[in-house]
Amino acid sequence: MRIGVLGTGMVGQTIATRLGELGHEVKMGSRSAGNEKAVDWASGASEGASEGSFGDAASFGEVVFNCTPGAASVDALRMAGPENLSGKVLVDVSNPLDFSKGMPPTLSVCNDDSVGEQIQREFPDARVVKALNTVNASIMVDPSQVPGSVIFVCGNDDAAKAEVGELLQSFGWPADDVLDIGDIAGARGTEMYLPLWLRMMGALGTPSFNIAVVR
Amino acid sequence: MRIGVLGTGMVGQTIATRLGELGHEVKMGSRSAGNEKAVDWASGASEGASEGSFGDAASFGEVVFNCTPGAASVDALRMAGPENLSGKVLVDVSNPLDFSKGMPPTLSVCNDDSVGEQIQREFPDARVVKALNTVNASIMVDPSQVPGSVIFVCGNDDAAKAEVGELLQSFGWPADDVLDIGDIAGARGTEMYLPLWLRMMGALGTPSFNIAVVR
Repeated sequence: MRIGVLGTGMVGQTIATRLGELGHEVKMGSRSAGNEKAVDWASGASEGASEGSFGDAASFGEVVFNCTPGAASVDALRMAGPENLSGKVLVDVSNPLDFSKGMPPTLSVCNDDSVGEQIQREFPDARVVKALNTVNASIMVDPSQVPGSVIFVCGNDDAAKAEVGELLQSFGWPADDVLDIGDIAGARGTEMYLPLWLRMMGALGTPSFNIAVVR
Repeated sequence: MRIGVLGTGMVGQTIATRLGELGHEVKMGSRSAGNEKAVDWASGASEGASEGSFGDAASFGEVVFNCTPGAASVDALRMAGPENLSGKVLVDVSNPLDFSKGMPPTLSVCNDDSVGEQIQREFPDARVVKALNTVNASIMVDPSQVPGSVIFVCGNDDAAKAEVGELLQSFGWPADDVLDIGDIAGARGTEMYLPLWLRMMGALGTPSFNIAVVR
C-alpha cells in the first residue's frame, strides 16, 4: 500500500520505518520537501521510501498518518491540502502536549474538544481514526514488549476503523487487544490520558509500559 | 480508628460501610445533620456508625474521606471547617464531573489544576492524598474483582500516603498494586483519566473494570 506519514519526529520516523519493513511504500512529509531529517530517513529506509512536502505525502498515500505535534496538526493538515485527504483514512497519532508553560506539559486542547475532533471538523471528507497515541513510539510498532495490553481506536467511520485495526494487527497488536471506544469524540479520552501516562512514566522510571484492561 | 466520611452518595456509602466492616468507627457527614440518606445508612450499618454535619464528621475523624462531588468539594470542606481538617489525612476520592452541559460530562477543572490541588491549596494544613477515583465504588473496596490492577495515590506528604496505603491494603489492594505517582498535582492525571474511563465503560459494557500496568 502507499502510505503518507506526516511528521519527521520520533513517532513519524518509527511508524514510517515499520510500515516500510512491512512492505509498504512510504512517503514522509514535512513542512517543505527536502527536510534534512526526512531526507536522512528516506536514504536509510527500505526501498520505496521517499520524502516530500506535507502535500506530497498526503497526495501519495492511500492512507495517511498524522504524526505531527497535536497543537500544530490542523495547520500541518491544511498545508497538506483537504483535496489530498478527501475520502482517505487519516490515522491521527498526535497528542496536544504544550510545553510552553514549563513542565509538566499541559494540553493545548482538552475537556470539550480534542485534536482528533478538530481534524475531523476541519476535514469532514477525511476518515479520521484516532489511534496509538497512548503508548510511546517503540511500543506503537512493537507491542510484544507489553503483551496483553490495550490499544484504543475511535472515529466516526466503522470501515476506516476496521482498516486501521488491520494495520495495527500488522504491527503486532492482537485483534482482541484493539478496543474501539466509539466515535471521534473518544479522542478526548485518549488525549486526556496523557497527564496520567506522564506520571506513570515517572513512577515506573520508564516509558516502556502500557495499560491492560482487567475485568 | 475514627473516620469521617463526607458525602452520602454511592461512593460515600460504599466506603463508609466497608470501613465499618473493618472495625472502624465511622461518622457520615452531609450538608446538615439528619440527612435522610445518612440516617438510613447509620441505622443499617455496623456498630459505631453515626452521622452528622460535614463539620461533625470532619471533627470526629482522625482520617477524613472526601466523597462529595468534585465540583462541590471545596465548598463542602469549607463547611466542614479548616480547623477540623488541620493535620489530618484527607483522602480525596472525588471527580470533577460536570453534567450540566449534557452527556458526556466534562470536567469542572482540569489541565492546569485539579480538585486535589484546589483542596490542598485551600486547606494547607490538611494532608491531602488523592486516591481511589479511577475505579467505581464497588471496586474501590473490593479489588479482588480486578486482580493485578493498579490503584494510584498522590500527595505532598509521604507519611500521609503511607497511611492511605495501609487503608488501601485493608480494603484488599496488594501493596504492589498501589502506585505512588508523586505530589498532589498528579491528581490532574487521575481526574483527567475519567473521560477515557467513561469511554472504556461504554466499550466494555460494564463499570466493573480497572487497568493494570504491563511493562
